[in-house]
Amino acid sequence: MFQKVLIANRGEIAVRIIRACREMGIQSVAVYSTADADSMHVQLADEAYCVGGPKSAESYLKIDQIIAAAEVANVDAIHPGYGFLAENAHFNEVCRESGFEFIGPSPAAMEKLGDKNTARSMAIASDVPVVPGSDGLIEDDKAAIATANQIGFPVLIKATAGGGGKGMRVAENAEALEKALSQARTEAQAAFGNGGVYLERYIGSPRHVEVQVIADQHGHVCHLFERDCSVQRRHQKLIEEAPSPNLPDAKRKAICDAAVRMIRGADYSNAGTVEFIVDPNDDFFFIEVNARIQVEHPVTEMITGVDLIKEQIRVAAGEELSFTQDQITVTGHALECRINAENPDKNFMPNPGTISKFYAPGGLGVRFDSHVYGGYTVPPHYDSMIGKLIVHRPTREEAIATMRRALAEIQTEGISTTASFHDKVLQHPEFVSGKHDTKFVEREFTGK
Amino acid sequence: MFQKVLIANRGEIAVRIIRACREMGIQSVAVYSTADADSMHVQLADEAYCVGGPKSAESYLKIDQIIAAAEVANVDAIHPGYGFLAENAHFNEVCRESGFEFIGPSPAAMEKLGDKNTARSMAIASDVPVVPGSDGLIEDDKAAIATANQIGFPVLIKATAGGGGKGMRVAENAEALEKALSQARTEAQAAFGNGGVYLERYIGSPRHVEVQVIADQHGHVCHLFERDCSVQRRHQKLIEEAPSPNLPDAKRKAICDAAVRMIRGADYSNAGTVEFIVDPNDDFFFIEVNARIQVEHPVTEMITGVDLIKEQIRVAAGEELSFTQDQITVTGHALECRINAENPDKNFMPNPGTISKFYAPGGLGVRFDSHVYGGYTVPPHYDSMIGKLIVHRPTREEAIATMRRALAEIQTEGISTTASFHDKVLQHPEFVSGKHDTKFVEREFTGK
Repeated sequence: MFQKVLIANRGEIAVRIIRACREMGIQSVAVYSTADADSMHVQLADEAYCVGGPKSAESYLKIDQIIAAAEVANVDAIHPGYGFLAENAHFNEVCRESGFEFIGPSPAAMEKLGDKNTARSMAIASDVPVVPGSDGLIEDDKAAIATANQIGFPVLIKATAGGGGKGMRVAENAEALEKALSQARTEAQAAFGNGGVYLERYIGSPRHVEVQVIADQHGHVCHLFERDCSVQRRHQKLIEEAPSPNLPDAKRKAICDAAVRMIRGADYSNAGTVEFIVDPNDDFFFIEVNARIQVEHPVTEMITGVDLIKEQIRVAAGEELSFTQDQITVTGHALECRINAENPDKNFMPNPGTISKFYAPGGLGVRFDSHVYGGYTVPPHYDSMIGKLIVHRPTREEAIATMRRALAEIQTEGISTTASFHDKVLQHPEFVSGKHDTKFVEREFTGK
Repeated sequence: MFQKVLIANRGEIAVRIIRACREMGIQSVAVYSTADADSMHVQLADEAYCVGGPKSAESYLKIDQIIAAAEVANVDAIHPGYGFLAENAHFNEVCRESGFEFIGPSPAAMEKLGDKNTARSMAIASDVPVVPGSDGLIEDDKAAIATANQIGFPVLIKATAGGGGKGMRVAENAEALEKALSQARTEAQAAFGNGGVYLERYIGSPRHVEVQVIADQHGHVCHLFERDCSVQRRHQKLIEEAPSPNLPDAKRKAICDAAVRMIRGADYSNAGTVEFIVDPNDDFFFIEVNARIQVEHPVTEMITGVDLIKEQIRVAAGEELSFTQDQITVTGHALECRINAENPDKNFMPNPGTISKFYAPGGLGVRFDSHVYGGYTVPPHYDSMIGKLIVHRPTREEAIATMRRALAEIQTEGISTTASFHDKVLQHPEFVSGKHDTKFVEREFTGK
């Protein structure tokens, strides 16, 4: 097992990884920017090295500085956390070339999964459903109708050069499709100088469901069930939960099995997440693989009892998974709210500053993962998350009640947070029903 | 269900009860002494009433003041917590006479169980083992030997008027017994003016094991398994855990069943704890019933998932237990360390004062129940506990590792705590083996 691990990250995830190291008897090494000198991850680590200035590009993204710290501290391995360099295959490779184990998948697996088209082809090869679509561009409108009938209406017309919704149209039937195709081509030509369009099934009320997987270097792959992350604002997840509400057991088994096939087909080791969209019929379609630990991993830890960070460290050190698939069972229901230093009444404007008085929520069923404390100054240079509030109770209904109680307890004098916004979401009948989709927050709370 | 509950207590247990009320949609009413005006329980409750001066006798023990607050706030029920008036049958009765439900057993059950001799007789009547002893005083040394043979050597000679160890002798065999009897009589006569002595089985390495029980007012009684509280100093519990390590499953079943018989025989409703001593053969003997919620109830909550405070409130309101015995299963292992504002290097001298900077431990598997925060002043008037650090992990070994990690994280600038002492205990091979008894701390750490 490793003697010493460097954490190439900051904030709550650095604290999370330091905790796992300490429990395993591994020395932890923090790196930090000049703006983070007072952060809890610096205080809790066994050693800490300043790697540069406040901007990420000057410090947390500075590969040579991080490798230099690893060399000075003489560590065995580097944990990248999430964000920053976590999915940078080049960094992954440099770590290994410099003699440090990278706690994550191989650079090759990371690179392949990082390319959306390659990942989609790998999914198809592993018999993992992808969103049905036309094979390439639509050249002939008659053929397009045949394809659309095959895919099933409604269909989505997308511009191959597209972005920002330009050249995008939903067609409910053949007649509408013919009309929309020409509109979309014209719009795409005008916007991108390329009128090429293709078809995809239109999924009207998509839910975001993802499966946590972990694999060792000995061919063992296990899933740890799924998470629902449909509460999003501008594609940023706000609330995550496990298990996914209202997912029938047969679909749960099918989506988890598909994720295992995907990871096995990618020759992948360490923790990874296979993301899907799920339609109102509970049919699921592959989106992408996140080749790292995710922000929302704690909800999976709560319902399975597995410490995912420790398991990442173990498999990176060459150990076999500490469990088999049939030892993984689900107990209760877990929710996570991301607490951001943002003002929900001012369009979620970031709200850095000094937390003059701080009270962390606690008690039965409550876990708080955070790097902040009374007197801490939230720097303006990084993402605005100041902590993750996680609850675990026997039922979803009880988990919601405990989360609302815990949200009410958080005190962060000096800055606004999103805690009050979460409380509104948790009371909304659509969320309570568990039938909300990824458009729920924009539809019900914040407008377009 | 109740609309409003008054909590006749302070500190972490008041916070604990307020949390349960909030999750149930019940309004909470705090009472406080002038010394506790800044306490978190006052801040978190929906309403708060000052009931008197800093000394307990002036406030938290002042029945008329507490009843007056309940009347002004117009509550439905009163939760007494633990300590203060929690096992005062008179207060229990006054609450009910004033029209407030008392969240606990009936005054009659409380009174009977509060008398040790009555409780022992009730245990015998319910076929619950008590420490075997002579029936009354020893009049005849020959008969004493026969009795001792029946009880089994070694036996303990105790003075009927005794206390402080005076007149107490351990005898390993018949010869030693004859000699010791006359010594004990002489010593007792000299010390108390009463030479009467009796015999009890001597239990050399006792463990303290207690069973959590809860009963509704409809005749349902369930146990929630046992806790081991053998880590004690001067009869004060320091570390509690569930399940009890090294207790064979057959004994676990037997002790839990005995506790249910005891509670059923006492015509008892609400939460209660049946305490036992367990000898090196894993034979168990009834000590007493605690007719209230206990400090260490969280370890039971962690391994069973049951919220004991909510269940107390439900059964006091006349509801049936929300579960049956076969729905209660054990998941993982839980530990609790009582964090006291005491200086372990100065013979555990209480160490009240202002906590200038505070960091609460968090992360996977960690629960912190506390009323303190950065800037809070620990008053000198009450017990010195500032929080309960609870961990829950799949195995005892992992729970110990997580507890040691969490203890290292607590920061309480301005006061000393017992956190460092707990860390020493958790590393001791005897504790790690789970074979420690109630004399372990005094033997290994603090002397007599």
